[in-house]
Amino acid sequence: MTIKVAIAGARGRMGTAAVKAIEEADDMQIVAALDYKYDGLFLHGAEATEEVGGIPIYTSFEALVADVKPDVLLDLTGPDAVFQNMHNAIAKGVRPVVGTSGLSFEEVAKLAEFANGQKVGGIIAPNFSIGAVLMMKFSAMAARYLGDIEIIELHHDQKLDAPSGTAMKTAELIMDVREPHAQGHPDEEEKLTGARGADIDGMRIHSVRLPGLLAHQKVLLGSEGELLTIQHDSFDRSCFMPGILLSIRHVMNQQDLIYGLENIIE
Amino acid sequence: MTIKVAIAGARGRMGTAAVKAIEEADDMQIVAALDYKYDGLFLHGAEATEEVGGIPIYTSFEALVADVKPDVLLDLTGPDAVFQNMHNAIAKGVRPVVGTSGLSFEEVAKLAEFANGQKVGGIIAPNFSIGAVLMMKFSAMAARYLGDIEIIELHHDQKLDAPSGTAMKTAELIMDVREPHAQGHPDEEEKLTGARGADIDGMRIHSVRLPGLLAHQKVLLGSEGELLTIQHDSFDRSCFMPGILLSIRHVMNQQDLIYGLENIIE
Amino acid sequence: MTIKVAIAGARGRMGTAAVKAIEEADDMQIVAALDYKYDGLFLHGAEATEEVGGIPIYTSFEALVADVKPDVLLDLTGPDAVFQNMHNAIAKGVRPVVGTSGLSFEEVAKLAEFANGQKVGGIIAPNFSIGAVLMMKFSAMAARYLGDIEIIELHHDQKLDAPSGTAMKTAELIMDVREPHAQGHPDEEEKLTGARGADIDGMRIHSVRLPGLLAHQKVLLGSEGELLTIQHDSFDRSCFMPGILLSIRHVMNQQDLIYGLENIIE
Amino acid sequence: MTIKVAIAGARGRMGTAAVKAIEEADDMQIVAALDYKYDGLFLHGAEATEEVGGIPIYTSFEALVADVKPDVLLDLTGPDAVFQNMHNAIAKGVRPVVGTSGLSFEEVAKLAEFANGQKVGGIIAPNFSIGAVLMMKFSAMAARYLGDIEIIELHHDQKLDAPSGTAMKTAELIMDVREPHAQGHPDEEEKLTGARGADIDGMRIHSVRLPGLLAHQKVLLGSEGELLTIQHDSFDRSCFMPGILLSIRHVMNQQDLIYGLENIIE
Repeated sequence: MTIKVAIAGARGRMGTAAVKAIEEADDMQIVAALDYKYDGLFLHGAEATEEVGGIPIYTSFEALVADVKPDVLLDLTGPDAVFQNMHNAIAKGVRPVVGTSGLSFEEVAKLAEFANGQKVGGIIAPNFSIGAVLMMKFSAMAARYLGDIEIIELHHDQKLDAPSGTAMKTAELIMDVREPHAQGHPDEEEKLTGARGADIDGMRIHSVRLPGLLAHQKVLLGSEGELLTIQHDSFDRSCFMPGILLSIRHVMNQQDLIYGLENIIE
Repeated sequence: MTIKVAIAGARGRMGTAAVKAIEEADDMQIVAALDYKYDGLFLHGAEATEEVGGIPIYTSFEALVADVKPDVLLDLTGPDAVFQNMHNAIAKGVRPVVGTSGLSFEEVAKLAEFANGQKVGGIIAPNFSIGAVLMMKFSAMAARYLGDIEIIELHHDQKLDAPSGTAMKTAELIMDVREPHAQGHPDEEEKLTGARGADIDGMRIHSVRLPGLLAHQKVLLGSEGELLTIQHDSFDRSCFMPGILLSIRHVMNQQDLIYGLENIIE
Repeated sequence: MTIKVAIAGARGRMGTAAVKAIEEADDMQIVAALDYKYDGLFLHGAEATEEVGGIPIYTSFEALVADVKPDVLLDLTGPDAVFQNMHNAIAKGVRPVVGTSGLSFEEVAKLAEFANGQKVGGIIAPNFSIGAVLMMKFSAMAARYLGDIEIIELHHDQKLDAPSGTAMKTAELIMDVREPHAQGHPDEEEKLTGARGADIDGMRIHSVRLPGLLAHQKVLLGSEGELLTIQHDSFDRSCFMPGILLSIRHVMNQQDLIYGLENIIE
Repeated sequence: MTIKVAIAGARGRMGTAAVKAIEEADDMQIVAALDYKYDGLFLHGAEATEEVGGIPIYTSFEALVADVKPDVLLDLTGPDAVFQNMHNAIAKGVRPVVGTSGLSFEEVAKLAEFANGQKVGGIIAPNFSIGAVLMMKFSAMAARYLGDIEIIELHHDQKLDAPSGTAMKTAELIMDVREPHAQGHPDEEEKLTGARGADIDGMRIHSVRLPGLLAHQKVLLGSEGELLTIQHDSFDRSCFMPGILLSIRHVMNQQDLIYGLENIIE
């Protein structure tokens, strides 16, 4: 069976990469694009033209469903449209696969209640990188045994916020299992302010910003006589494609809404 | 309740470190040492003397059990004595915790059958380092999603065998879950023989040997656009102590024989 | 004074990046493009059009020199045209800055003799990445003191040759100063063939190939109780631009031909 | 010719390691130990006994020189005795090789003036690790070309001061050549205080403290599209021996006082 996928956000950079990845997969195909304009045109790469043969574009989700009967709606748009898109999809029995960290807790809860009631599977993934999700999962697993932890995240120097969202998320996952305690020597002294990094529940986070860097994170877990390091390097947005394909396959066997790729990775 | 621990191999380097670690733990104590000589003497550090107040030494396990009724026998001797020691312990209802990779499959099977029949818990751990065991476990978990893998292990230049036992064990655990396939470009060419390392099921292992190094391993798992690295550095034999203490605590709640620390780490 | 630069190979990927970098620099400008076609047209980005205002294209170097009198010819073409281009430039007193590893020893020698005789400065750089060149230079400097060395180079799995050219070049630079000797234990044994990597003069090179990787190299120099590691990560061709600008500035003060960026970095 | 070395501080841990290293070298030998007690006894390992055959101990430097005429005085004592020991050595024409960071600028200046006047070579090395000294030297060399720099130093969690002395020394050497400027994005924001580390002249230093760690430092130098990393791992005090032997050999050909191992490493 071939999974029929409709896509929202197809003309963006992530979208064009996703279209390509899905077309290269044997078990799924793109059947339509949902857009806010270009109704009736056809998508060729990132361009919408009148040339027949590309992916048909719809501005109405109802019309799209009536015409192509998709199994899955992959939504790679921003936070504005995503709540309504997901709601529409669930109402029509189309499984949503959504990559965004922009939904509020309340919105996610509302969508989960709706999806679970309708027995329509769905996945919301703030991060589609399997490697990044495994790094976070393993860090939290290891923290039960190796409770002294420092996180070093390294990004290009155009990044505005420090620590990164991934570092904060990692720390939160660790905090769920780690016994809180101050690390380092009780009498340690910072001779230069900030040297010991940011303190979060006793753990430390260090944010490196340099030109040339892309997106990297190391989680260091120390114990007497040993060190365990879990590191993720993200070089290119192509790293999100395997997680998207995995989610599309997985959602076909669900009857509820799942939040976070880590919950479909065993 | 304090767990009463008898120890075999107490005068070796691992043994003296274990005695110290157990004495510093709140929930267990060393009650006797099993040795092949020095019966009736007392252990003070690594030395057996007549001075009362140390750990009483027995050459007979029967006499030891009769006198001090241990809950656990921690055996840190070599492969020669360990089978008989474990058998004796199980027969007396004393739970064996054993650190050796020297038992054959047949011996382990025989001991497991005996322990399970007697409902006496036991643990055999080829590696008591929790960090190393987690590295292996995580590598195998990640290999289901990131199937292109190379292992780099680095040791001091006095090591005779390459690859290391830990690298081989890691590769075997990965092979249980990874779809076998050749890695690298089909037409790749070694301009210097050996550059691409050892081939095991399509994966590659590289063994670095340099003065100064201790014992280190990195498992690199690559996928389009990303890299996940799981690294363990072992600096000192003190890294084995947490795994020993964990095993002693865990074995109190078992009624069967467990092989490998990875099976008591969740 | 503004350095006037003519460029050959301007329509390629390196070329367009170099044009952009030079235009952003305060002390130099692109005055013409040398090409094998499009004479009389103008370069706008990577495209040659009739639209006035871009960089004027010449197919004749003589005409180019007569019209714009460049100080420097930056040549980023392949090995075919480069010898003749350099010869023409030197004959006209235009300083060549060339990025290629495709010239033979004989060709370099011939060009050097001609340039030195004419007192025209020139630079041939097989690698314009300052970071990579420093990695090689430092490795050779350190090898005088830390003589046990292994090189790990890591590239994407589409690379055909192993070891990489940079790893081989690094090893050669080290061999000039390192006392040759076998490394590792004299009785070490490869239980899997290739585990200890490629042997070059007693040193070892390991080539890792994984999807996701870009271009990376680590040089490990070990000694009793310590390890020095010199690592270079190349993420993008933009890393070649600072070396190109540095060469253009440096060549203005030379009267001879220099081979290798390492010889203008102090 | 065999270099005759007298040693002060021979009974300490560094001292016993140094005695062993010097005795294993072909071109030098220990001829006497200078101590504040045990005059007339003999040193066997770290113990002073009456047993003839070990290294003769003197409490008077004058008597030591009269008896054994050393070429070099290796001083591994603390900061208290070292100024007087060096002064005495220079006065007698014995070349001092000294490992301490405890002398003030004024004391070093005074000793240098005296040694240079007497034409007696001498070396004061705050750090005898060749690997650490090369890391610092290379970082400063590279900083001329790659001026965006962050230092990550990692030590065991018993260390009291952050950043480490080596990190501070590295930053100072870099500051001598780097154009000062703020790094990171001008609008970057620390969402957790300290995340971006300590600021020194625009560079950043991050201090990691974890159980298990020994002494490690990475210097990261970033530029558009690339990263150069210079890393030193110190595992054991044996790493100081090659620097001590190198200094003893080098001092034989000097007629002045040199401060810092980096100045005898080319």
